[in-house]
Amino acid sequence: MTRTISILGATGSVGEQTLDLVRRNRDDWRVVALTANCQVATLAAAAREFGAEIAVVADESCLADLREALEGSGIEAAAGRTALCEAAARPVDLTVAAIVGCAGLGPTMAAIEQGGTIALANKEALVSAGEVMTAAVSRHGATLLPVDSEHNAIFQCLQGGRIEDVRSITLTASGGPLRLVEDLSEVTPEQAIAHPNWDMGAKISVDSATMFNKGLELIEAHHLFPVGLERIRIVVHPQSVIHSMVEYRDGSTLAQLGPSDMRVPIASCLAWPARMDTPMAPLDLAAIGELSFFAPDEKRFPATRLAREAAEAGGAAPAVLNAANEIAVEAFLKRKIAFSRIAVLVERVLADGNHPDAPRSLSDVLMVDEASRRRATEMLELA
Amino acid sequence: MTRTISILGATGSVGEQTLDLVRRNRDDWRVVALTANCQVATLAAAAREFGAEIAVVADESCLADLREALEGSGIEAAAGRTALCEAAARPVDLTVAAIVGCAGLGPTMAAIEQGGTIALANKEALVSAGEVMTAAVSRHGATLLPVDSEHNAIFQCLQGGRIEDVRSITLTASGGPLRLVEDLSEVTPEQAIAHPNWDMGAKISVDSATMFNKGLELIEAHHLFPVGLERIRIVVHPQSVIHSMVEYRDGSTLAQLGPSDMRVPIASCLAWPARMDTPMAPLDLAAIGELSFFAPDEKRFPATRLAREAAEAGGAAPAVLNAANEIAVEAFLKRKIAFSRIAVLVERVLADGNHPDAPRSLSDVLMVDEASRRRATEMLELA
Repeated sequence: MTRTISILGATGSVGEQTLDLVRRNRDDWRVVALTANCQVATLAAAAREFGAEIAVVADESCLADLREALEGSGIEAAAGRTALCEAAARPVDLTVAAIVGCAGLGPTMAAIEQGGTIALANKEALVSAGEVMTAAVSRHGATLLPVDSEHNAIFQCLQGGRIEDVRSITLTASGGPLRLVEDLSEVTPEQAIAHPNWDMGAKISVDSATMFNKGLELIEAHHLFPVGLERIRIVVHPQSVIHSMVEYRDGSTLAQLGPSDMRVPIASCLAWPARMDTPMAPLDLAAIGELSFFAPDEKRFPATRLAREAAEAGGAAPAVLNAANEIAVEAFLKRKIAFSRIAVLVERVLADGNHPDAPRSLSDVLMVDEASRRRATEMLELA
Repeated sequence: MTRTISILGATGSVGEQTLDLVRRNRDDWRVVALTANCQVATLAAAAREFGAEIAVVADESCLADLREALEGSGIEAAAGRTALCEAAARPVDLTVAAIVGCAGLGPTMAAIEQGGTIALANKEALVSAGEVMTAAVSRHGATLLPVDSEHNAIFQCLQGGRIEDVRSITLTASGGPLRLVEDLSEVTPEQAIAHPNWDMGAKISVDSATMFNKGLELIEAHHLFPVGLERIRIVVHPQSVIHSMVEYRDGSTLAQLGPSDMRVPIASCLAWPARMDTPMAPLDLAAIGELSFFAPDEKRFPATRLAREAAEAGGAAPAVLNAANEIAVEAFLKRKIAFSRIAVLVERVLADGNHPDAPRSLSDVLMVDEASRRRATEMLELA
C-alpha cells in the first residue's frame, strides 16, 4: 500500500537519510512536499527524482532559481514562511519534521494541525514550544514519533507497555568528546566538534561536548513521555550502543540497541508500527566486547542540571535555556568565549529573573526566543 | 479483578517465588490447585495460607500425611499422576507449570488442554516434547508465557513487534563458573555447581557449567519463537544483566535487562500483558559499570553445538539429548565420570543412530526419554 510523505527540511542530514530510505522502498511512498532553506539544486533534484507535488524554499530570494530548476517538471515551486506552512498543511500519512531551529516551529505546527503522524526531528520544537506543541497534538489528534535516537529508543521500549507501568526512563549519553579532557577551559572549537560516535553539525557537536544536547533531550523526553521529571535519568555510556532504556515497575528494563546511524530511528518512524529493511550490519556484541556506564559529572558539565532546573521551572525557562545556549555556542565557535563559559552564560541568563510569561502560542514562543537571544547577547557584550 | 491461578510444582524454587509474589498481591488472586512431589508440610502450609481449592502430591505414599496436614481446612487432598493431571485440568486464568523434569509433562499438557494461559517453567516440556506441545497449544487455543529469564526477555522484546520482522534472536549466557578454568578435565562437582549469578539446584548448575543449559534453551527458543534455528544466536555475557535480545530487520535491537532474580520474569507472566510491582531495586548501570560480551567457545563447551545439531535433526533428537545429559550429569555428580565426559557421552548417544521415531504424543515422548536414559546408562557402563 502506497503511503504519502512530506519532508520538511529535505536537504539536511535527517532529510537526506529519510530520502535514502524512501529510495530503497520506492513503491511504498508517494512524496507530496519537500522543503529546504535555500539549497535549490539539491531540493530540485530530490523533487524530480521522487516526483514530489511541491518544492518549497524558506528563503524567498531563492524562488526564481527554484522555478528554473524545476522547469518542465510539472512540480509546483513556492517560497517563504507562509508557503512553507501551507505545504506542511497538505494532508499526508507521514510528515518528517526535520527543519533545524525555531524556523521549523511554524511548519511543524501546521503539520500537527492536519492531525496526521509527525516524525519529529526538530529538537527546538519540543524544547522551546513543549506545552504549546503537545497541547496542539492532543487537540488535533496527531501522533508524534520521535526521531532523535534516544527518544526513538524510549518510544520503542514503550511499545506493548503502558506509561503508568514505567518506573523510570534512562537517557544514555556518550559523554561527548571531552569526557576525559582534564582542563575544559582550554578546549578549542576543533576539539569540541570532534564527536566520537556520531557525524553531526557544529552546533549539535558542541552541544554534545557541553552535554547541553543531553539537557535538551531531557526536556524533550519530559514532554514526550509523561512519567515525571524525577523519573528521567541520564547515564553516560561512551560506546553509544544502548540508545536509551525504560524500566518497568516489575524490575524489567527494556533497552534499544543499534548502530550510530540515524537511518535506524528514521526507519522505525517510517514503518511504524511495523518494521522495514535497512542496510545495517547485524549488531555483534562479541565484536564490540564491552559496554561501559558512568554517572554524569554535573560539576564539570552543568548542562544537564541546568536543563533539569529549566524543565522543573517550566513556562518560558526551557525556551530561554535553548536560546541562551545557541548564542553561547555561536560565540564559542567564533572564539569569543571559552568553552567553560557556555554553561556559565546560560546559567546567568536563566538566573536573570526577567523571564517572559509562559508561552501560550507559537508567536509567544518565538517572542521568548527572540528576547532571550537579545538578553544573552547583551550579557556576552557586558562580560 | 481477582484472577484464578494454579501452581504445578508449588514447593520448588519457581513455585515458592510465585507464591511470594501472589502473597504481595493477595487480593488479585484466588488459588485453585497447588501441587508438589512429596513436600507435604510446605504444600499444606501454602494451601492453608492461600486458601487453595485442592492440594495434590505426586507421590501416592504421601497422601495420608497430606490429608492429616489439611484436616479441618476444607481443602481437598489428592495424590498420584492422574490426580495431578485432573487438578491441572481445572480451568484457571493462569497455570504456572513449574514441575521439574519429565514428571511435569503430563500435568502441563492437561493445563494446555483446558485452553488457558500457561506460564511455562518446565524446560523439559519444550525440549523433549516441543512439537507435541506446541501443536497442543495451537489446537486448544492456549497461550504460553515463558518463565525462563532468557525466553521471558525475548517474549518481552517481541511485545508490540511482529515475529516476521525479526532478523535474529540472541540468547545471552553467563558462560558458567568454568568459563575461565583452563583444564576442564579436573573440574569437581563442587566447582561446577558454584554458579556466579544465579542460585540454582545442582542439575541446572552443572548444565550451566557445561553450557547444556544454554543448549536446552536454544531448543526451547526454537519452539517458542518461530524465526528459524539459524537466526537464534548465543553470546556469552558474564554479568547476566542483559537476559536476551531481539534484533529487528531495521537494525533496532531490543533487550531486556534486570536483576538475576526469577521474580522478575515470574511477575512479567503473572501480570501480562500489564505489569505488577516487585521488590526489585532499580537497575543502576553506573554502579555495575561494565557489561562484557564474548563469542561462545564451542570447542571447549560443545553443548550448544550438540543442541543445535539435535534441534536441526528434529524428531526424537532433542529428547535424546536431554535424557542423555541427565544421565551424564548424574554420573558426574556421583564422581563416576569426569566433567569433560558429559558432552562426550551425550554426543555418543546422539550419534548412536538407533533413535526412536519422532514422538507424536506425550507417551511417545516418555518412551523416547526412557529408552535414551537406558542407552546412556549402558554406554556409561561400557566405557
